[in-house]
Amino acid sequence: MIIEILATGNELLSGALVDTNSAYISEKIGEIGIMAARHTLVGDDEDALGTTFKELSNRAEIVIVTGGLGPTRDDLSREVAARVAGVALELDQVSLARIEQFFSARGRKAPKNNQIQARFPAGAEILENPIGTAPGFALKINRSTFFFMPGVPAEMRKMLKEQVIPRITKIIRDPYYYECKTISTYGLGESALEEKLDGFMDRFPDIDLGFRASFPEVQVKLYQKNSSQKELIKEQQEAVSWIKEKLGIKIISMNGASLAAVVAELLINKKATLAVAESCTGGLIANLLTNIAGSSEYFILSAVTYADIAKQKILGVSPEVLKEYGAVHEETAKAMAAGARELSGATYAISTTGIAGPAGGSPEKPVGTVCIGLAGPAGITSKRYHFPFGKRLLNKKIFTAQALNLIRRELLS
Amino acid sequence: MIIEILATGNELLSGALVDTNSAYISEKIGEIGIMAARHTLVGDDEDALGTTFKELSNRAEIVIVTGGLGPTRDDLSREVAARVAGVALELDQVSLARIEQFFSARGRKAPKNNQIQARFPAGAEILENPIGTAPGFALKINRSTFFFMPGVPAEMRKMLKEQVIPRITKIIRDPYYYECKTISTYGLGESALEEKLDGFMDRFPDIDLGFRASFPEVQVKLYQKNSSQKELIKEQQEAVSWIKEKLGIKIISMNGASLAAVVAELLINKKATLAVAESCTGGLIANLLTNIAGSSEYFILSAVTYADIAKQKILGVSPEVLKEYGAVHEETAKAMAAGARELSGATYAISTTGIAGPAGGSPEKPVGTVCIGLAGPAGITSKRYHFPFGKRLLNKKIFTAQALNLIRRELLS
Repeated sequence: MIIEILATGNELLSGALVDTNSAYISEKIGEIGIMAARHTLVGDDEDALGTTFKELSNRAEIVIVTGGLGPTRDDLSREVAARVAGVALELDQVSLARIEQFFSARGRKAPKNNQIQARFPAGAEILENPIGTAPGFALKINRSTFFFMPGVPAEMRKMLKEQVIPRITKIIRDPYYYECKTISTYGLGESALEEKLDGFMDRFPDIDLGFRASFPEVQVKLYQKNSSQKELIKEQQEAVSWIKEKLGIKIISMNGASLAAVVAELLINKKATLAVAESCTGGLIANLLTNIAGSSEYFILSAVTYADIAKQKILGVSPEVLKEYGAVHEETAKAMAAGARELSGATYAISTTGIAGPAGGSPEKPVGTVCIGLAGPAGITSKRYHFPFGKRLLNKKIFTAQALNLIRRELLS
Repeated sequence: MIIEILATGNELLSGALVDTNSAYISEKIGEIGIMAARHTLVGDDEDALGTTFKELSNRAEIVIVTGGLGPTRDDLSREVAARVAGVALELDQVSLARIEQFFSARGRKAPKNNQIQARFPAGAEILENPIGTAPGFALKINRSTFFFMPGVPAEMRKMLKEQVIPRITKIIRDPYYYECKTISTYGLGESALEEKLDGFMDRFPDIDLGFRASFPEVQVKLYQKNSSQKELIKEQQEAVSWIKEKLGIKIISMNGASLAAVVAELLINKKATLAVAESCTGGLIANLLTNIAGSSEYFILSAVTYADIAKQKILGVSPEVLKEYGAVHEETAKAMAAGARELSGATYAISTTGIAGPAGGSPEKPVGTVCIGLAGPAGITSKRYHFPFGKRLLNKKIFTAQALNLIRRELLS
């Protein structure tokens, strides 16, 4: 069963907009065990669309198309689909009534050019769009079934779920079960991970192994397919145990969660709270933690103390410590963490002070150096690290991940 | 001249990751006057890659490929390109030395599988990768020139700019001058911008107008092509004046800079400093400001005071204000800004307190409500806004932009 995905639109082809629809559709059909064979993207051009429809209709059993169903002159999907299928466009009275009702419900009269959205290739099965004016449609072209959906993500997502996926499930009648397990890791690059997992393919020949880097975290993905659901589950359990043994503490989540989400969960489970004192990470730790809904349950504050004066005034870092050791030092990191914990009354506090670059490095403290402090019920510790990534934004990310990983390990211990 | 773009990788085809590279490449070749004919995306599969390389080599003069140059087994671009071109893979000693040096500079030994990254199809022209281990290469396949680049966006972007675009310019031997002027705006959506700029096409028929949303900022792009450089410059000056008149203060930068970068520049020019007090933006303001190198010149601190106790202890917001008005209120925003300014001694302070959602909304203060305070030499003000975007991360972004825009306008006044 070959399924292909086609996105259309000049704004996508020109790069003005990133096509997120195709990835979304791939993800959703992945959940019913189908890997798309290919994504294609063409502009609002009659010839390009015609050529592509023909090509895809000869190559794939199912084609999922987004875009080109709007009311304007450059919305060509209906017309070109009819031409390639060799049928005429016909007005659908039910859709016309729905479009008129869509506008009248909003106190407006349907613009004349919206009526074109009620015209479909003869023989098409119409797919309702309850949240927009562009209905979709399914149409047989050559040996393929094409599903045409609007490009507006919210409309497309609803139509995909409610109208397209159920129809695909019927068409494929696939006897296999599918699973994709995602394991998040931190602390090993992709190559190092692959080395650590050497032997996996021999041990589990039916599982495809994939890696997905989201710097500095890397996800290990297990793609499974099996005609027996029981065997699939058993095989997954064995594979997961095998990987756990090889990667140990480098695994941060068995469900693809990020470091920030894992730290959040651990804090909630322990009914513990966290305060942060950030210098070189500049608010990134706080930003990642507060991206998670419900963070007020455990996150008290972050003092982004960029200037020395802020470290003194907010965190109570003594001028003597700053003078003797400098801003980037284990002792300063300790004082920052201790200050943040005392100020906030949080169970734990983490701190970062380092050199993100590009300027500010020295032979003893090159760009990429960071000192991370941790204050908690068990006392105050700190450690110095050096990372080789060289770029300001990468350094902010790796410093942040390292701090989150330290508190993660503390919470696990 | 037909140019096509090909992205490769199972993580893209499965939808685990959205392909942003192809849109980026389209945008950049758009700046030298080329519209890509098509984007294609296939997985890490030998047959699929082989078929696609062949197809593209028969259809396009230039093909730009990303991905598949890593050190792991599923990185197949080198191998498949050699096979389709009918040549062998050859070890390049210079690249090998570079890879070994890349690791030794980081105090590590090159893993054995990274050596594969120094093997290229015979006859390929190697494209240096100064920031990663995967060099790219240019290779003739049939009548096409293929440019192979790594999929890691930062590496790809650098290689595209420094190595690929100059080679494409040579190949196309185009007699025209091209310019792409990017004007950043904030405060108008795409449709509203288009309405405001109605009449542009009649007035400047030789300039193509494009829009690019980077929520919540929108860039207006002017694409020009002219055989006379003098005329091109004159026309651009006229178009820019015309747009300035139509958009006024909604323009944040004439050079595509972001709100955060513009605020940074204005502060530096005024020799002023800034402190921030963030509740609902959770560190995002600090994070964006400290993403810019040199931010220590004007950025003193951000107090990410998520809990009420933090607002009291760090910013000195009185318990009475919090009790009488609640955390989300103009008066609280004022007290936060005043507290941050006093604490830091900064010239200006901005504050945010609001409801990013999904929880925490009420009929009087629904999700999307934010109060922003501003304290400066001219006194303390605050204002309440409500944004209709409904999602936590979008709310954090729009609250942040609104706060940055307030300080921008204050600095301009």
